[in-house]
Amino acid sequence: MAAAAQLLRGAARCPPALALAAVAGRRALGSAPREAAAGRRGRRAVLAAAGALGGLGLGLWQWQRAVMAAAEEDEKEEEELRQRFMAPPVTGLRELRRRRRELRSRMELLIMETQGEVCRALAALDPGASFAVDTWERKEGGGGISCVLQDGEVFEKAGVNVSVVFGLLSEEAARQMRSRGKSLKAKDGKLPFCAMGVSSVIHPKNPHVPTMHFNYRYFEIEEADGTKQWWFGGGTDLTPTYLNEEDAVHFHKTLKEACDKHDLKLYPKYKKWCDDYFFIKHRGERRGIGGIFFDDMDSPSKEEVFQFVKSCAKAVVPCYVPIVKKHCRDSFTPEEKLWQQLRRGRYVEFNLVYDRGTKFGLLTPGSRIESILMSLPLTARWEYMHIPPESSKEAEILEVLRNPKDWVH
Amino acid sequence: MAAAAQLLRGAARCPPALALAAVAGRRALGSAPREAAAGRRGRRAVLAAAGALGGLGLGLWQWQRAVMAAAEEDEKEEEELRQRFMAPPVTGLRELRRRRRELRSRMELLIMETQGEVCRALAALDPGASFAVDTWERKEGGGGISCVLQDGEVFEKAGVNVSVVFGLLSEEAARQMRSRGKSLKAKDGKLPFCAMGVSSVIHPKNPHVPTMHFNYRYFEIEEADGTKQWWFGGGTDLTPTYLNEEDAVHFHKTLKEACDKHDLKLYPKYKKWCDDYFFIKHRGERRGIGGIFFDDMDSPSKEEVFQFVKSCAKAVVPCYVPIVKKHCRDSFTPEEKLWQQLRRGRYVEFNLVYDRGTKFGLLTPGSRIESILMSLPLTARWEYMHIPPESSKEAEILEVLRNPKDWVH
Repeated sequence: MAAAAQLLRGAARCPPALALAAVAGRRALGSAPREAAAGRRGRRAVLAAAGALGGLGLGLWQWQRAVMAAAEEDEKEEEELRQRFMAPPVTGLRELRRRRRELRSRMELLIMETQGEVCRALAALDPGASFAVDTWERKEGGGGISCVLQDGEVFEKAGVNVSVVFGLLSEEAARQMRSRGKSLKAKDGKLPFCAMGVSSVIHPKNPHVPTMHFNYRYFEIEEADGTKQWWFGGGTDLTPTYLNEEDAVHFHKTLKEACDKHDLKLYPKYKKWCDDYFFIKHRGERRGIGGIFFDDMDSPSKEEVFQFVKSCAKAVVPCYVPIVKKHCRDSFTPEEKLWQQLRRGRYVEFNLVYDRGTKFGLLTPGSRIESILMSLPLTARWEYMHIPPESSKEAEILEVLRNPKDWVH
Repeated sequence: MAAAAQLLRGAARCPPALALAAVAGRRALGSAPREAAAGRRGRRAVLAAAGALGGLGLGLWQWQRAVMAAAEEDEKEEEELRQRFMAPPVTGLRELRRRRRELRSRMELLIMETQGEVCRALAALDPGASFAVDTWERKEGGGGISCVLQDGEVFEKAGVNVSVVFGLLSEEAARQMRSRGKSLKAKDGKLPFCAMGVSSVIHPKNPHVPTMHFNYRYFEIEEADGTKQWWFGGGTDLTPTYLNEEDAVHFHKTLKEACDKHDLKLYPKYKKWCDDYFFIKHRGERRGIGGIFFDDMDSPSKEEVFQFVKSCAKAVVPCYVPIVKKHCRDSFTPEEKLWQQLRRGRYVEFNLVYDRGTKFGLLTPGSRIESILMSLPLTARWEYMHIPPESSKEAEILEVLRNPKDWVH
């Protein structure tokens, strides 16, 4: 639990890291009908009560019809949501719909929907494979849903993780937050918090299809006087084995369009932040060709930031899926596969040495390690003194990783 | 440079981490005859001078003969050393022999000899492959020799690295040392230091041959009043993919014998230290089945600790090579190879997340990264939620990694 606040401020993939002391259980998609059954029972009782009053006249009959229609609509809507999600949400669907005006609920629906959208889009590209869906609970409050497709034809490893955790922040975590510039007044040394997010890393098999990572997260913390501090963080970035300028432009352009709808200043600022964050210092290289990355976003308003995050989350599929479709049947040589494996090694180096969310998660007792390390590739390689020849395709991507370029203006 | 002192106190593979701002150059073994030529020139001048005085009588003739004999012996001895080393030592052979009574020189000769011994023993097991020998210099003082055999028939990756670095410790490094319990009085804020060591990781191809790591290092630091603080550190440990009790006993027994010659308390103490140090906390597993590990060793006397370290270094080949010989032709299944790859992933996790030497090296600007990351395997694998079946051979080794055993009493 310690430093959970800092984690969510600073992490690229923080929500899984918060999956502390989680109890995991694997379920097939749609096979957890408890809540649905409870919902149906509840509605049946309302309808029965209305039916018993049926003899009191037309007005009551109309009221009964209206109640039935509303209940049917509710059930239909819930059923639709259930179809779109990979598993029942951590906060029950009922509760989410009851509190649908609260940002927490809207963000949870958004991350659930994003998980479903991305998993369905990827599964459609790799028909022979399927996502394993694990739901897990966190002892102290909340839980998560991890979806992983492994060793498919198109994807080596694709993981999309949702987590929604809540509880009390310790004094230590609060101190860490203060050191990050946020002053928080705790009641009895504890601060109620809620953290949620969706995070994903997609490693394809073909070296001409790039790896993609995204993460969108929301954090809320309540001070002693009842005021709530909140912020969003997130980003989407691309890690190609070989440079394809057209793909790079498409990826960045799609992200830029998502940002530009909200504020023209956002894309340039978050593009640079991304290049700075995903830096493998000991190699003098970025992990990939970037994208966007942001943290501590709490202005201009909660609604506006949420709408921005929503645009970014909705841009994940259109910025990545066309690139996968375009290249997943490309032919490749054993040498190209080898270079991909060496780049996978660099991905591991970044994630284990620098990524704040991963590091924090690994060092926190009781974390759900499998959800945190879901980001690592299926296979990786380290060769001593591997230096690509000058003017090779391998040297070309290294040049861009050493000196990031602007792909759209 | 910062915290170099702490590094050498605390690192499992610290010397390569000190290879700051190194300039690398690859040389074939024995192809750098500069020093040898200079030595021959020097001796020829002495002999010529003696020859010019030859007419002065029999006494002088005898003196001339004695000088010639001594010079020949010197040259023979140097030639022998040269044959035993993988490259010329960082401190010239001449200088090392001139100062042969100093512990620094004896330790440098020991680490050079250990490097040669281990490389020759391994190369003999993998006749088709050979060690690439890289010598590199450190801008601020010293340098190193990295020997790497890659993608052989028996070894996937075998690296043996020597480094000898010296210079001035910054105030910051000194502060870090103080926090580790050593009080040091600097002159003008700087402390002259010398650090040297040999470190090695051997990853074999066959999953029935375990990975082995060793490292022996020496540190010296001079305080303002001229007193020298010094200490040794090191260890040898084994990481099998599958448990072979006979091998485990042989390995630990050989190490115990090396320790017992010096003090019966050493093996139990350093065996436990090894189990504690190589702990992958987030997995609740040790990296392997241990061996010995020690640090900050500065008693009972410099000579006695050096003799102990020498015994340990001399035990490397006998504790490991018989195990390689025994299993390198064992047949194995694709499933066994896969389990090896998953265990390689854990090796990477330990080295990148916990190993103090690696972490410090990666975070120090100008380190020779290739020598530090030489320890990573050629290939590794991460599967989501891989859990070996109960009572399998895979579960058997996991049990030992979770609950270390005593192999010798």
